[in-house]
Amino acid sequence: MSILIVSQNRNPKSWVDTLKSKNQDLDIQVYPEVDRPDDVEFAISWKHPEGIYQNYPNLKVIASMGAGVNHILKDDNLPKGVKITRIVDEQLTKDMSDFVLLQCLAVTRNLFLHWQNQQKSNWKLKSYQTPEKTTVGIMGYGNLGQAAGEKLHKNEFKVIGYANSSKTINEISVYGKQNMDEFLTQTDILVCLLPVTSETKGVLNFDLFKKLKPNAYLVNVARGEHLVENDLIKAINEGFLSGASLDVFQEEPLPESHKFWEHSQIQVTPHIASMTDPNSVAEQLLTNFEKMKSGEDLIHEVDVDKGY
Amino acid sequence: MSILIVSQNRNPKSWVDTLKSKNQDLDIQVYPEVDRPDDVEFAISWKHPEGIYQNYPNLKVIASMGAGVNHILKDDNLPKGVKITRIVDEQLTKDMSDFVLLQCLAVTRNLFLHWQNQQKSNWKLKSYQTPEKTTVGIMGYGNLGQAAGEKLHKNEFKVIGYANSSKTINEISVYGKQNMDEFLTQTDILVCLLPVTSETKGVLNFDLFKKLKPNAYLVNVARGEHLVENDLIKAINEGFLSGASLDVFQEEPLPESHKFWEHSQIQVTPHIASMTDPNSVAEQLLTNFEKMKSGEDLIHEVDVDKGY
Repeated sequence: MSILIVSQNRNPKSWVDTLKSKNQDLDIQVYPEVDRPDDVEFAISWKHPEGIYQNYPNLKVIASMGAGVNHILKDDNLPKGVKITRIVDEQLTKDMSDFVLLQCLAVTRNLFLHWQNQQKSNWKLKSYQTPEKTTVGIMGYGNLGQAAGEKLHKNEFKVIGYANSSKTINEISVYGKQNMDEFLTQTDILVCLLPVTSETKGVLNFDLFKKLKPNAYLVNVARGEHLVENDLIKAINEGFLSGASLDVFQEEPLPESHKFWEHSQIQVTPHIASMTDPNSVAEQLLTNFEKMKSGEDLIHEVDVDKGY
Repeated sequence: MSILIVSQNRNPKSWVDTLKSKNQDLDIQVYPEVDRPDDVEFAISWKHPEGIYQNYPNLKVIASMGAGVNHILKDDNLPKGVKITRIVDEQLTKDMSDFVLLQCLAVTRNLFLHWQNQQKSNWKLKSYQTPEKTTVGIMGYGNLGQAAGEKLHKNEFKVIGYANSSKTINEISVYGKQNMDEFLTQTDILVCLLPVTSETKGVLNFDLFKKLKPNAYLVNVARGEHLVENDLIKAINEGFLSGASLDVFQEEPLPESHKFWEHSQIQVTPHIASMTDPNSVAEQLLTNFEKMKSGEDLIHEVDVDKGY
């Protein structure tokens, strides 16, 4: 019985080493060098090539290396009946919150503008906005959204949330679908932390951007599929948005010729808002490996229909 | 009896408007258009040209527009007996803490490196350090230092302080002069928030940089006089420091030809870590104006010998 590691754009070796350090008897195969496909029952997966899981007749579980699972679910050729799990990791949640706080502070303090001015040897004062006067609207108020919201709130930002239904969590008002416009019209900095579902794909579009406060700013740290890329350019160029920080893209790595790279009001980071540390999540993966073997319910299993 | 506004590189109009809005009967003159120098008893001052205060025979108080007063005290031709005051403003303190937190998060998350990579359309992952594993050493543990330290601590950074004498304030260990080396050898990010005195001028020098943890990073948000500029370049180029964020300089605005502008490991911001909002400090200035008139003790008066 074997564990398969499938890791595109990430280093599989650190996963093998970390898993072996927990249990040196594990039988681990690394894609694409797989001699014994029939032995594979459990795959640990990041952005696998579509269709490959058809080649493992005894596969029972595909475990995402990250919090997101859309990179798995978007494959139309997944074997039937395979269970999908996601990572739930406090460190991953905390790292994401830190990155969102960093972006919100950088926006209010004009850090990117000052950095651009430095490239021109240009000493140019610009007054700043304080967190107390800045409303951050968080779209998607699950685990990640709530943690980011509370971190921002603790650092004196005004915070509102958006989720399927309205509620108040730890003093923060979360607006539901019926009140989406009310949420948008208050928002200076829009942070997207939604899961990818058929409903949320393309939700960051021109119509939405127009409803935000004048000169609002977008931070997308969820998935590239949420954003209609041309609509972002249009909304910035027409003055509805003052700019955007994007950590995720429809195609990753972002192609060299992509217009985002060169846009002076768009900051590109290479999907580093939160990066899974194998050490920090090996235990939950191995727990599920054991649960699978003994036929128990898995932890952090994804509802495939909902998509999260 | 008249108030003089002396404001180099800053807009005097917002000061006049704000003071007038509090008391429209105030007699305010703006340097250099001063018709009645004999009427001036109270000056509100930012980076005045050296020697000018000799021209006001009845001047009693020079009030700094900011928390620092070295820009006043360094003038060897101040009239004798004139009192100096500084601004103490919670908002100014808070703004400074926010900026220090922003810099520390930007450093740990490699934000400047990612921006540089963006200019080259270069998608390049780099793993980050978490706040929990990053020790920020704060030199100068007065009002500003303590506020920054507590904000960083609240955001899970490891924080230590350095001051004249050792103490523990709200769980944070502050090292005294005898233990400076112990402070330095633990420090990943060194934040300078010292006042400028004869002892602290040039304290940020090569010998000090060599004692920090390997690849340490400097954040100077105090005053340009603390830093030996060539020593910084040397320490970065020889690999003792990984970089620096500088908000203050020996000459401001930083001259166009200065080598800091183009150094890829130095981030320049134009003295904007905390900017005095006239609205937020007009009251304390006018309070001192009234106290001066009635011969009472001033608030926030500076000990000229100590320099703070």
